Amino acid sequence: MSEKLNQLKEILGEVADLQHAGALLEWDQQTYMPPGGSEARGHQLGTLGKLAQLKSTSDEVGRLIEDVTAELGGARSLETSDSDDAALVRVAARDYDKARRVPAEFVVEKARVTTNAFNAWGEARGKSDFSIFRPHLEKVIDLMRKYITFFPPAEHPYDTLLDDYEPGMTTGEVQAIFNPLRQDQVKLLKAIASSKQVDSSPLYGRYNEKKMEQFCRGVATKFGYEWANGRMDRVLHPFETTFSIKDVRITSRFVKTNPTMMLFSTMHETGHALYEMGVKPDYERTPLMHGASSGIHESQSRLWENLVGRSLPFWEYFYPHFKKLFPAQLDGVGLKKFYKAINKVEPSFIRIIADEATYNMHIMLRLELEIGMVEGSLRIQDLPEMWNAKMREYLGITPENDAMGVLQDVHWSLGLMGYFPTYALGNLISAQLWERLNADLPGLSDEITRGRFDSLLGWLRANLHMYGRKYDPQELVRRITGSKINAEAYVRYLTNKYSEVYGL
Amino acid sequence: MSEKLNQLKEILGEVADLQHAGALLEWDQQTYMPPGGSEARGHQLGTLGKLAQLKSTSDEVGRLIEDVTAELGGARSLETSDSDDAALVRVAARDYDKARRVPAEFVVEKARVTTNAFNAWGEARGKSDFSIFRPHLEKVIDLMRKYITFFPPAEHPYDTLLDDYEPGMTTGEVQAIFNPLRQDQVKLLKAIASSKQVDSSPLYGRYNEKKMEQFCRGVATKFGYEWANGRMDRVLHPFETTFSIKDVRITSRFVKTNPTMMLFSTMHETGHALYEMGVKPDYERTPLMHGASSGIHESQSRLWENLVGRSLPFWEYFYPHFKKLFPAQLDGVGLKKFYKAINKVEPSFIRIIADEATYNMHIMLRLELEIGMVEGSLRIQDLPEMWNAKMREYLGITPENDAMGVLQDVHWSLGLMGYFPTYALGNLISAQLWERLNADLPGLSDEITRGRFDSLLGWLRANLHMYGRKYDPQELVRRITGSKINAEAYVRYLTNKYSEVYGL
Repeated sequence: MSEKLNQLKEILGEVADLQHAGALLEWDQQTYMPPGGSEARGHQLGTLGKLAQLKSTSDEVGRLIEDVTAELGGARSLETSDSDDAALVRVAARDYDKARRVPAEFVVEKARVTTNAFNAWGEARGKSDFSIFRPHLEKVIDLMRKYITFFPPAEHPYDTLLDDYEPGMTTGEVQAIFNPLRQDQVKLLKAIASSKQVDSSPLYGRYNEKKMEQFCRGVATKFGYEWANGRMDRVLHPFETTFSIKDVRITSRFVKTNPTMMLFSTMHETGHALYEMGVKPDYERTPLMHGASSGIHESQSRLWENLVGRSLPFWEYFYPHFKKLFPAQLDGVGLKKFYKAINKVEPSFIRIIADEATYNMHIMLRLELEIGMVEGSLRIQDLPEMWNAKMREYLGITPENDAMGVLQDVHWSLGLMGYFPTYALGNLISAQLWERLNADLPGLSDEITRGRFDSLLGWLRANLHMYGRKYDPQELVRRITGSKINAEAYVRYLTNKYSEVYGL
Repeated sequence: MSEKLNQLKEILGEVADLQHAGALLEWDQQTYMPPGGSEARGHQLGTLGKLAQLKSTSDEVGRLIEDVTAELGGARSLETSDSDDAALVRVAARDYDKARRVPAEFVVEKARVTTNAFNAWGEARGKSDFSIFRPHLEKVIDLMRKYITFFPPAEHPYDTLLDDYEPGMTTGEVQAIFNPLRQDQVKLLKAIASSKQVDSSPLYGRYNEKKMEQFCRGVATKFGYEWANGRMDRVLHPFETTFSIKDVRITSRFVKTNPTMMLFSTMHETGHALYEMGVKPDYERTPLMHGASSGIHESQSRLWENLVGRSLPFWEYFYPHFKKLFPAQLDGVGLKKFYKAINKVEPSFIRIIADEATYNMHIMLRLELEIGMVEGSLRIQDLPEMWNAKMREYLGITPENDAMGVLQDVHWSLGLMGYFPTYALGNLISAQLWERLNADLPGLSDEITRGRFDSLLGWLRANLHMYGRKYDPQELVRRITGSKINAEAYVRYLTNKYSEVYGL
């Protein structure tokens, strides 16, 4: 390996160390930090973030990337080479270019504005009063529009935001995927609404927390989560976080009023974790570590949560165990009834608890509003009204207040714009992968019925996980499935599933 | 405040952030990190340490210290001023000077040598085979002797090592304190040995772990430990660690064969924590944060563990509660019998479980051997033999093997030389403070009998804790007690206590 490439890897390794140290500080903040620690923690995270930023955008890194690119035959050759070194330099160059375009003062300004916006959002949501958040959101939107100016003009200004989470994808591509999908999902929802409704009341009994956790851990273990390289702790808002390919942690939450949520949320976070655990060990401390994009990551969490965890084969194996833990709560509830209960479709206000048939509608609504705000065609003061109008149009319901509507998500307060569509893309990709998987592994469904997930995980590792950030999402999906990202498989999946559940 | 002082504080604040982030990474390593995380953690700690070192020894910091020193009237004026700013610059200048003297290559070399030495020590101790550790210890000693050459010649080469843990103290001063103390303690031990022995068997019953932890937490709370600014977790080797004056964590361990150890160890770590929690809030993120020296720190842990926690007034209040938790284990054991049991004196091989009457002997032995190794008057190959000879001389017992003898402590493998004497100094200082405390607070003993520690903690905060690193240990002790560090109070304390326990 060349001396310069070694030097580049060494510096980027230190950047990774700082980022992972920061991630541990954030994990501690969510899990164990006593309340008193919060002010100092802010300083510590600020310092680590600043040093990582300085180090990764130094002139030295720029020179090394240039030199190594030349050594590897130039930029054109980097694009076409399939070697890990070429991919590393390609991804490093992209990260470097993006980070260098954004002035340090902007980073500081954004941190200041979003800290205030986050606090205002918390207050606004608590009081269900959009007017408290509005001036802050206006500032965030100004920042987003300013951010876009640092980059070469794109087909659509929103492309620049999207590219941070879904490298290479454009607004046009996403809209071309979502537009027909919206019609298909609305049609499906109408059919479901006019069918006999499903009874999900058995899910809302009094479930013992410790037993539920025990079951969740058992499922994660069966999926292939390696406890020697991770752990699970309790938090208010579950997440997955990675400090090393061999230290990938998940978190969970038990909510008395919705006890099975812990189960699906644990499967979801386990899905993210299995992806991170499966990245090629050589990529440790390099820019190729972690997942290819937010959408690809979400395809993994959704695949394990929904295509596996809400499937009949899964529960054919697990339901007897589950029922043994909760005999009173599930008295008289057979497998089929339980399966239907966990797949009940019901238009609701809150995205994070939406079912598979309505979830994407929540995303499309947000995407349209984000595009409107970024284009300037939507005035922030009109946002709550627009939100409610779209809820009525897509789901036929009107939020009782802004806390249940436009104020429900934290994302905008943090300046996370361009992120929402990746949740829906994740759903679509999960179904594309699922079709390919079942074609490659005809016995998969049977294996799941026997509580075996080895070939599933093995396939995902070999075809997707191991590559980390080596390929862009579109290329990765094309390599695996032969097609670009599209909604067809997901529509087929939804239609089949709900035809069965609702007897359509 | 001057612009330059602000700049200096800003940079040193970032150094503190890096150090505290590193401390959190170490805490996680001891408490929750899955085994797989250890390799990446080594990289992360290495990077944080390197960046903290680079930042704190930069030319910029040197220039700022010079400029601010001039602004504050020059070095001479800094020495005599009692202002916090002067103290900050004084301490920063000392840290800077020390760090700058040590070449970066030496730091790297030391990290390499001690990592290997630590691993070899673990293996050697496991096999009780000194020959495995010997070549590594020789290298560590070479490093220590090289380290000394970076500093101006002192009265004794060991002074340079000692100064890192007990700023300003010399080997001569320590020897002048220890020499008469050794004779007094040997005399006391002989008197105890020829008295009727104490029965400590009630301490070694089967104690329930959860109840013991509950009691430990209760005692820490009574002492004044603030749970909103800290927490307690389980580890293999208990310690206290600080990430902020408002995030000071303790750790504990339950050992079935020695269940009350958890109790005294928790009081010990709580003592360290109360010190760190009591530092003036203005010192957050400055070089004045944390304790004045290892010896002063140990005086606080020992004071709460021994002078409070092994005292009769303490147990007059707590014994009824303790006995209620463990009625079977303490059946027929009255307060006096229990008090005697926890104060049993018995020469033993292992320092960390030694009683108050023998503990310092373990330290003196180590100090003499360290001085011999640093001077070159003791050959490493002769170390086990010398160790055993001194054990016989001071405690009248011979270790069965090297694991119980010369290999028991981790310190030398890590290059911690000059550290051991601070444990004994801590004992001596705790007794000096205790005499002053009781003179100032005549009702203290009564208050403790009633389970009240407010005036004790209040006094320690006002007279000691709040000052952090502002004063050197000798000056601090002189300011509080009117005398320099000496053994007289400790000898009086031991003599009184054991006269009572053993009816001397």
